[in-house]
Amino acid sequence: MTDWFINGERNGMISIDDRAVQYGDGLFETIAIRHGKPRLWQYHLDRLARGCECLDIALPGAEQLHQSLQDALAQSSAASDYCLAKIIVSSGFGKRGYGRTRSAEPSIWLGVFASTPPPASSYRDGVDTKVCDTRLATGSATAGLKTLNRLDQVLARSELTGQNLFEGLTMDASGSIICGTMSNVFFVSKNHVSTPTLSNCGVEGVMRRHVIATLENHDIDVSDAVVELDDLAAVDEIFITNSQFGVLPVRRCGETVWPVGETTRNIMTLVAAKGVPECQL
Amino acid sequence: MTDWFINGERNGMISIDDRAVQYGDGLFETIAIRHGKPRLWQYHLDRLARGCECLDIALPGAEQLHQSLQDALAQSSAASDYCLAKIIVSSGFGKRGYGRTRSAEPSIWLGVFASTPPPASSYRDGVDTKVCDTRLATGSATAGLKTLNRLDQVLARSELTGQNLFEGLTMDASGSIICGTMSNVFFVSKNHVSTPTLSNCGVEGVMRRHVIATLENHDIDVSDAVVELDDLAAVDEIFITNSQFGVLPVRRCGETVWPVGETTRNIMTLVAAKGVPECQL
Repeated sequence: MTDWFINGERNGMISIDDRAVQYGDGLFETIAIRHGKPRLWQYHLDRLARGCECLDIALPGAEQLHQSLQDALAQSSAASDYCLAKIIVSSGFGKRGYGRTRSAEPSIWLGVFASTPPPASSYRDGVDTKVCDTRLATGSATAGLKTLNRLDQVLARSELTGQNLFEGLTMDASGSIICGTMSNVFFVSKNHVSTPTLSNCGVEGVMRRHVIATLENHDIDVSDAVVELDDLAAVDEIFITNSQFGVLPVRRCGETVWPVGETTRNIMTLVAAKGVPECQL
Repeated sequence: MTDWFINGERNGMISIDDRAVQYGDGLFETIAIRHGKPRLWQYHLDRLARGCECLDIALPGAEQLHQSLQDALAQSSAASDYCLAKIIVSSGFGKRGYGRTRSAEPSIWLGVFASTPPPASSYRDGVDTKVCDTRLATGSATAGLKTLNRLDQVLARSELTGQNLFEGLTMDASGSIICGTMSNVFFVSKNHVSTPTLSNCGVEGVMRRHVIATLENHDIDVSDAVVELDDLAAVDEIFITNSQFGVLPVRRCGETVWPVGETTRNIMTLVAAKGVPECQL
């Protein structure tokens, strides 16, 4: 079940001349809605604002965006206590050509989607993954942002078809693991937590930020990870994060298996207490 | 003046759920139409087929595509002896998420646009360019293809705003010049022609291919170019190629200026004789 809203009207049709279609010239956020409220809203807003600054798109004010989201949720038959919203912001209508028409108004679309949580067993026992062959392009000016240019993720995700895997991890050109197709990844080695930097590729997830902030609040340091394929088996624990599911342990990546570790379980308890109750074991 | 056609109907509205909008999950071709015929049609088809293979999109047969294009041209008020057509092929309608619905039919949209050639002075005297600060992301699985993920080009192009420059050249992360925002680039040094390889980033233009083929037909070898910013001033001649304008000399890039060289003029004459009369000086 899905509803799209454009300027407050329920409407799923857009102009093919919008630059979102022609060039992927825009950004999006996928927001967990819990009991009518957008979770980690400020983090979503921050990333969207950073993206709009990079792409030179005039983002409407935070209050207006929040009100539009609430209006969409109030009107949508897909809304429930546990659902998700997607906000797409594009640079708007354009003439043909990469250069923008300076006067163009941004397009803002709000989607409301029904959603179901992963089963409790995924939180308890972990999920199965593999490392994808598709590498992430590196050195992009939009690294870390959630732009509408997502072919790397689409191609990596397509490698999972028919394999009954929850997620695929992706590497950069040099063979370092960067993130999942729809998640960020954390490693635990000798009780120390690390996660790859996303300055050259990948998406800086809001749940990744929330996990790092939560750990820092408990004086648990999260350092930069450089983990290559061959290092993976030596890692003690792995978990992935995403705005919708929160934190999930990884129990398998390719041939390597892990038990759900104590550090991961402790982190899930901390994150659950900070607004992400799904992670409570 | 623009017309869009979807399934033979004049229609400029598409579903926001199309994966072209959500992820840029598709490809496009921008084709010069001269006296009712698509120029370099086979080269456009070849690139589109390569792209569809990479993205696992089922491309309709070449004859059907050609017929749809002819139908659109026949119906469009934007069509003329000198115009352009744009074909967009996306992986089609999708549920939310990077993974595709396997049964999805590709979306195919045809646009017809009015177009005007550059002035004769651009062919005779050359055009002004600069090297953009925006670098191309490298190591993409879709390098060379004309996908709907074009933010690198959009950002590079935005650097030209208000500067009265015809084109911006872009470098990869290591600082090698790869191509223009909307063109490919060729260098001439000591009468030898070279052009950057596009195996890691950039778009393999159909006019680039046509120029290489034309030169090879005249036993003129075109080698791989590795030209960094500091090498630029030492190059004897530069020209750029694009499906619409053919070949244009570069007379300035940043602070460096060049006269229009003899080799470039000779190549323009050869290419003009092979179906691109705009280049005839």
